[in-house]
Amino acid sequence: MEKDKLDPWGTSSIKDYSRLQSEFGIQPVGPLLTRFKKPSPHLSRGIDFGQRDLARVIDAVDGNKPYAVMSGIKPDGVFHLGNKMTADDMIYFQSLSKKSTVFYAIADVEAYADNGLSFNESSKTALRNVADILALGLDPDQAVVYKQSEEMRVMRLATIFSRGVTNNMLKAIYGERQIGLYMSALVQAGDILMPQLPDFGGPKPVLVPVGADQDPHIRLTRDLAGRYGSEFGFLPPSAIYHRLELSLTGGQKMSKRVPESGFTLDDTPAEAAKRVKVAFTGGRDTVEEQRRLGGRADICPVYDLYRFHFAKDDEHVERVYYECTEGIRLCGECKQEAIGLVKTFLEQHHKKREAMMGDAKELLAKSRSYLSSTGKE
Amino acid sequence: MEKDKLDPWGTSSIKDYSRLQSEFGIQPVGPLLTRFKKPSPHLSRGIDFGQRDLARVIDAVDGNKPYAVMSGIKPDGVFHLGNKMTADDMIYFQSLSKKSTVFYAIADVEAYADNGLSFNESSKTALRNVADILALGLDPDQAVVYKQSEEMRVMRLATIFSRGVTNNMLKAIYGERQIGLYMSALVQAGDILMPQLPDFGGPKPVLVPVGADQDPHIRLTRDLAGRYGSEFGFLPPSAIYHRLELSLTGGQKMSKRVPESGFTLDDTPAEAAKRVKVAFTGGRDTVEEQRRLGGRADICPVYDLYRFHFAKDDEHVERVYYECTEGIRLCGECKQEAIGLVKTFLEQHHKKREAMMGDAKELLAKSRSYLSSTGKE
Repeated sequence: MEKDKLDPWGTSSIKDYSRLQSEFGIQPVGPLLTRFKKPSPHLSRGIDFGQRDLARVIDAVDGNKPYAVMSGIKPDGVFHLGNKMTADDMIYFQSLSKKSTVFYAIADVEAYADNGLSFNESSKTALRNVADILALGLDPDQAVVYKQSEEMRVMRLATIFSRGVTNNMLKAIYGERQIGLYMSALVQAGDILMPQLPDFGGPKPVLVPVGADQDPHIRLTRDLAGRYGSEFGFLPPSAIYHRLELSLTGGQKMSKRVPESGFTLDDTPAEAAKRVKVAFTGGRDTVEEQRRLGGRADICPVYDLYRFHFAKDDEHVERVYYECTEGIRLCGECKQEAIGLVKTFLEQHHKKREAMMGDAKELLAKSRSYLSSTGKE
Repeated sequence: MEKDKLDPWGTSSIKDYSRLQSEFGIQPVGPLLTRFKKPSPHLSRGIDFGQRDLARVIDAVDGNKPYAVMSGIKPDGVFHLGNKMTADDMIYFQSLSKKSTVFYAIADVEAYADNGLSFNESSKTALRNVADILALGLDPDQAVVYKQSEEMRVMRLATIFSRGVTNNMLKAIYGERQIGLYMSALVQAGDILMPQLPDFGGPKPVLVPVGADQDPHIRLTRDLAGRYGSEFGFLPPSAIYHRLELSLTGGQKMSKRVPESGFTLDDTPAEAAKRVKVAFTGGRDTVEEQRRLGGRADICPVYDLYRFHFAKDDEHVERVYYECTEGIRLCGECKQEAIGLVKTFLEQHHKKREAMMGDAKELLAKSRSYLSSTGKE
């Protein structure tokens, strides 16, 4: 069996999530589940499968102590299902306490460097992306949104870190890469550690919700937090890892880089429906066979749509799984139901997002004035 | 014979300046000398020995067109003789036209990353360094001083460039280096190309006065200017190269990293005098021998003090050279005269600098408000 590979810039293949524990030191979420009064769907459905130092964040929740949740987006025009996964986690962990603060980075410098998007274009997309997360449930009163192009603190940290890492350390984590990717990794480390700067109240637990493929960034940042611990007092950031969703085309992983592999929150309900309609499934070759052997939900991206996003509740997920694997439910009807859920979700989301545009503008303006005022001598 | 090595981060050895032409493509200054109405001491004394695209800058002077002169300093506490060399060139080329603008970078992020200096400490040193260049003759009405820690445009450019360079390209220019040095090279490229951004009036000739050892940065930046030429319209920056001063200890090159190799504009006249007193010279073993064979001015750092900085005029330099190499002047008396000149210079410089502290503060404040206003939508 091939070794699992975690590549934040490629297509990761993760066949056995439990092996991530022994190989990379990611801890299981299971033993901590009892500490959540009301676990999120990601937790109760085993989508969030792994963690590092998550207990530190739960302790902060229980002790009514400040903590941060850090995430971000590259405003390259789409908010895809993977972004939604991370946003769902971010919003859930924000909601656990009045003492939490979400730090949300708009990676417009990277969008410019990688995609040639001007800051003006990015600005428009960023506004819509912020409306996206507000529509998904972000509390704007406990959130700071910043643009990389305006946040010198992140760049300063990246520069400092660039002196502390060696090429060998980066190679060990990422393999041999071009300098631009290394630099973007250091900038992300700056993003993750910024909430612990004195300007923001100093050292505190910081949770980063990520896909399993992003673990190399977490390892690098935890290493840097240690190296600069005596200087800045950084705590190593905590992380929670979600499973990677299966591609609608039947490949390994849903990816922004392969549009047909999923859809985005910007797609029209009709466009999304079309993608689901032609999706790969875990169905058998013939109806007879499927009735007899049952479908293979575990390799089915349509089942993942239910489980990861659109099922009404946990019971609904279980029912779909049961009906599929017992051969009660066939792929055609299953897709029809999924399409209905996806359409309803997108219609509602588009309405909510439209209604949130004003709030998004306000959150960006409020954040900007807060960020430019804090830490100024 | 060993190949000449140009290492901006080490101790470069340059035995034959004319070979820099064939090996690295640096052009001689000589053929352009007639185009200067009043050549600077650096030009007339052959200290500025090489150039790239200098004609483009002279054309701008003659055509009364805008151009920039770009330089900077790491505010790590000292303004040494090498900084003075670069400042002298910068000030001379500023003085040639009312259409010139000096861009002066205070590399406080690097000072923090490399030397652990807080931005507050850097701020104090930076103020004194700006007073230094004002005392040396900078015209504050045609100058913009910025701190790296506040100038996001440079960081944006560095990020963009990091995507355009390959590791092989960097290795070819600098050899195998740690990522921190590569990153600092990209930041310097950002410094050099910033004056050509639309915020500052768009593409224009930019002259960078440097020591010969800094040529790798110039080559990288010219390469990047080409790569991003169609996007930004960058002209490749021009450069003028000064010779490296001999170390007072008799080693190759005067260097900030080896304090005994020179002195700084912050040293007291007595401290500087002491360094000169014990300096290595090009003298012979005995007085008799020196009278007979003459001194070796070409390998003498004390002669370099006259030639590079402290002689009254060109005639004075020639006289010292003649008297030395003819055995008329002995090292003791030569050092005494040099010490007198150094002391007078430092006493006057300290007075002037003290008087310029207010102007320095004003220039920093004026620059800051200009930089934060330009280019804002």
